Amino acid sequence: MPLSSEQEIIAVFLRHQSVSCWQMTAAQGQRLEELMPGYRVVLCADEEDFVRQLSRARIAITWRCRQQWLNQASRLQILATPAAGKDYFTVTLPPGVVLLNGQFHGELMAETAVGAILALYRGILPAVSQYAAEPWPRTELSRRMRPLRGSHIGILGFGHIGQAIGGLLKPFGVRITGFRKNPQLPAPDWFVPGEDACFGPSELDRVLPALEHIVLTLPRSPDTDNILDARRLALLPRHASVSNFGRGNAIELPALLQALRSGQLSGAFLDVFPREPLDQADAELLSCPNLWRLPHLSAVADNYLDLFIRDFVRQYRLCSSGR
Amino acid sequence: MPLSSEQEIIAVFLRHQSVSCWQMTAAQGQRLEELMPGYRVVLCADEEDFVRQLSRARIAITWRCRQQWLNQASRLQILATPAAGKDYFTVTLPPGVVLLNGQFHGELMAETAVGAILALYRGILPAVSQYAAEPWPRTELSRRMRPLRGSHIGILGFGHIGQAIGGLLKPFGVRITGFRKNPQLPAPDWFVPGEDACFGPSELDRVLPALEHIVLTLPRSPDTDNILDARRLALLPRHASVSNFGRGNAIELPALLQALRSGQLSGAFLDVFPREPLDQADAELLSCPNLWRLPHLSAVADNYLDLFIRDFVRQYRLCSSGR
Repeated sequence: MPLSSEQEIIAVFLRHQSVSCWQMTAAQGQRLEELMPGYRVVLCADEEDFVRQLSRARIAITWRCRQQWLNQASRLQILATPAAGKDYFTVTLPPGVVLLNGQFHGELMAETAVGAILALYRGILPAVSQYAAEPWPRTELSRRMRPLRGSHIGILGFGHIGQAIGGLLKPFGVRITGFRKNPQLPAPDWFVPGEDACFGPSELDRVLPALEHIVLTLPRSPDTDNILDARRLALLPRHASVSNFGRGNAIELPALLQALRSGQLSGAFLDVFPREPLDQADAELLSCPNLWRLPHLSAVADNYLDLFIRDFVRQYRLCSSGR
Repeated sequence: MPLSSEQEIIAVFLRHQSVSCWQMTAAQGQRLEELMPGYRVVLCADEEDFVRQLSRARIAITWRCRQQWLNQASRLQILATPAAGKDYFTVTLPPGVVLLNGQFHGELMAETAVGAILALYRGILPAVSQYAAEPWPRTELSRRMRPLRGSHIGILGFGHIGQAIGGLLKPFGVRITGFRKNPQLPAPDWFVPGEDACFGPSELDRVLPALEHIVLTLPRSPDTDNILDARRLALLPRHASVSNFGRGNAIELPALLQALRSGQLSGAFLDVFPREPLDQADAELLSCPNLWRLPHLSAVADNYLDLFIRDFVRQYRLCSSGR
C-alpha cells in the first residue's frame, strides 16, 4: 500500500447545473475510493480545479473535456464519462489514454422506454394530456387503447440498450425485430426462435410495413442521420407509433410532425431531438398533436451515479487485467 | 346434431353506447357460434329483443340484467357477462342458473397497471401533463424520476388480476407483497422465495411502511370500503405512490386528495372512483396535483370481446364437464 502522498489520483469533475443525480456526492466519491484501492478520489468543484488535478491524475472522470485540458494530462491513462454516447467527447485522446463510456444505461432506459410504449398503447398519454380536464372521456380514449400483447415491435439500434428494452418487452408477449450494423452478433438469450429476429439496416424497408411500433436507440453518426425519414415513416402501417431514446439526428423531424398531423402515425414519444435543448422556437414541435416528450432524461434516476460507479469499476478491472 | 329449429339459443345483448370494443360484432358472434356446437347465437339489438330471446335461451350473455327479465327465462342455465366484478349483477338468480363472470381481464389490466406505474416512476406522467408546455423542464422532472428496479410494491387484492400485474412487474426487479383474504392459497409461480410474499389483510398495517407503491385490484364489498383510509395512507413512506384498478370504494378519496396536496404521496393513478361517471361536480378531484386518471378503462382494447369469447368457452366447457 503506497503512502497517502504517493497514491494515484482519480480526478472527478461531475457537476451538473440542472440535474442533481448527475452530480457526484461526497458519499459516492467515498464509495468509489473504497472500490479503487491505491487511488485517492478528488471531487473537483469547478473547471479550474479539475484542470489542476488533471496534471497529476491517472484517471479522470468528467462530463466534459476540452482538447487543451489534455495537454497537461501527462500521467493520464483512463478518461471516463458516465455518458453512453460515443459522440459525447469530441477530443482527440493522447496516445495510450483509454476512453471509457458508461454501459449501465440499459436498465434505466428500458424502464422509461417500456413505460412510454405501454402508456402509448394503453391510452394513458392522451388520457393525462389531451383529456385531463374532461371528467369521463370514455369514447375518445377507448378508441386509442391497444393491447401490447401480440404486437410486433422493431428496435433500431440493437446494442446493449436496445436489447435491454427488448428483454423487458418480451414478457408482455411482444414479437421483437432488432436492427444493428452487425446482425450476425449473438442474439440475446430472451430471443424466441421463429418469432424474434435481428437484421442489418438493409432489411429495414422490408420489415417496416409489419411493425406496429418502432423504438430508436441509435448512436449519433453520419450513418444514422434521418434514418427514419419521410419515405420510411410512410412504410409503417397506418396508426403505428414510434419512440426515440437514442439521438435526435435519427428521425426526420418535419416528416414525423407531418405524419402525426395526418394520422399516419398514432403517436410518438421523444426523449431526444435534433437540436437540444428545445426552446420557444420549437413551437411547432411543442404543440404537435400526439407527440409526447421528455427532455433527454430517459436514463435519469437518483441511483444514476451509483450504477455508473459499479459499471466504471467493472470496466476498469477489465482494462487492468488486459482484456 | 339437432335441426336448426331445435338448436339451443345463446342470447347475446352486448351493446355499449360509449365504448365500441364492448359491443359484440357480427364476426365475433359468428366466432362464438363456431366454438359452441349445437348453439345458435342471437345478437340482440336492444333490451326488448333481449327480453324476448331470454324466454327460450339456454345461455344469456349481457352487460346488464334486471330481476323481472329473469321471470321469463325458464330455460336459462347460464347467465354470463364479460364484467369481472361480482358486484356487477345485483339480481337474484333462479335456482339452477349459473353465473359466469369474465376472468380474462388480467392480461389487459396488467399492461395498463404496469404502464401507469412505470409512467409514475419514470416521470412520464408529470412530463406530459404539468410540464408539457415547457420546452426543457429538466430540473423539475429529473427530481421525480425513480428506478422501478429494486422497488417494493404491494398488491392489495391478489387474485388473478393482481397476480397478472405482479407477474409483469417481476422482470423489472420489483419485490412483490400481495394481500388477499386467503393468503394460504398457492403462490404464483413467479414468486421469488425470501423476496415476494402473500399476507392476509391483518398484516397490512405492518407492511405499509415498507412499500413504495401500492396497487389496488380489490373487488367491491363492505370489507373493502375505504380499506386505504387516511390512517393507512399515512403509514406509507413519504413520497410513496398508489394506483387503483379495482373498485372506487377502496380508497378514502378526501384523504387521498389531502395526501397528494401535502406531498405525503408523490402521485396517484386512478381508473376507478367512488361515484362513476365523474362529472363537473368532481372539480376537486379533476384538479388535484399529481393525480392522473383513466375513466374506468383499464381492461379496454380492441380485442376485449375476443378474449371474452375464448374465456367464456373455456368456462362453459368446465361447467359442462361438471368441474
